[in-house]
Amino acid sequence: MGQSRGQSRGRRPGNATTREEIIEEARRQFGEVGYRQSSLRSIARAAGVDPRLILHYFGSKQQLFVATIELPFEPEVAFDAIFAGGAAGIGTRLAEFLLTMLEDPRSQATVTGVIRAAVSEPEAAAFVREILTERLLTPLAQRVGHESPALRASLMGSQIVGLVMARHVVGLEPLVTASRDTLVNALAPVLAYYLEEDGGVQPKPAK
Amino acid sequence: MGQSRGQSRGRRPGNATTREEIIEEARRQFGEVGYRQSSLRSIARAAGVDPRLILHYFGSKQQLFVATIELPFEPEVAFDAIFAGGAAGIGTRLAEFLLTMLEDPRSQATVTGVIRAAVSEPEAAAFVREILTERLLTPLAQRVGHESPALRASLMGSQIVGLVMARHVVGLEPLVTASRDTLVNALAPVLAYYLEEDGGVQPKPAK
Repeated sequence: MGQSRGQSRGRRPGNATTREEIIEEARRQFGEVGYRQSSLRSIARAAGVDPRLILHYFGSKQQLFVATIELPFEPEVAFDAIFAGGAAGIGTRLAEFLLTMLEDPRSQATVTGVIRAAVSEPEAAAFVREILTERLLTPLAQRVGHESPALRASLMGSQIVGLVMARHVVGLEPLVTASRDTLVNALAPVLAYYLEEDGGVQPKPAK
Repeated sequence: MGQSRGQSRGRRPGNATTREEIIEEARRQFGEVGYRQSSLRSIARAAGVDPRLILHYFGSKQQLFVATIELPFEPEVAFDAIFAGGAAGIGTRLAEFLLTMLEDPRSQATVTGVIRAAVSEPEAAAFVREILTERLLTPLAQRVGHESPALRASLMGSQIVGLVMARHVVGLEPLVTASRDTLVNALAPVLAYYLEEDGGVQPKPAK
């Protein structure tokens, strides 16, 4: 089985393109069916390569998974753009950045794949925790104007993870059909609150 | 195999207590290892009953899963308590309610079990979507003082799901070790914002 599926794309000698194609296919399968349900065999078959080539490049399914987690953006570049301009409009800029990114099918597949993996595999959860903390939340916290920047950064991360879960994994309405602008407007004050001391939101005075 | 594990609790004739014990054990396993990794056999073994008794009571693993999702609170009663007193302090009351609930190991297992199932099983995702929408978000939206109550209710749900994911599934710091009061204070303005028109938060004036 599987022999007949390599077909048109055939089996090619290892080169940079093939490596990228394997990562691309792995990212797609991890995103769609999850880490546990994806196998080196199914990924190799869809990419039209021998499973041994995947082991040669990546060493293990676990390492292949790590290779697929190329963030769909460069964190420092994105943070520069979002924080430029100061507190005014910061929530809107972050919400626009996130929702635009999630409109790209490949970026969306990466993010949902990471979330599915974190839930289904304790080992993957450890990678996800590490990647989130080191590549996103710690650099972000260094820019957050608040006395508890790490707490605020992680709460912001939890809101984003929850949004992706509800909208793209569980399929909760009206989040699925809400327009990008509707979501940007609704989320902006919350994201601003997490990023800035009293940014975007203020405690409501008691009546 | 498994014969020797029924031991002290033995196999009892079906009765209300046994049914509850099966649900209890199923809830524990779904929460700890997930829907897909739990089997009727492993649940039967741990509960000290014959797997056929589980089928007799529940019909299928899927139906057993639905039976385990007894919300750890009565939504209308909880909403009454949270909305009593009006907009002032509503975010704090909701945050306190949620974080107190999550301190109870059984409630936490139910909530993480539902999230794990929604991610790992498309069928379970459909139940979760239905239960969330019908039992929580729609009744909640009827009380939300906002022109887009369903959107606000679902965004609030996404923040809560994200918090549980980050804190109890992925284990993201500093959320894991943050005290209940720290989290209540940080989340209250966000939850108030989702529940009330301009509740708890206000757009920050442009500088």
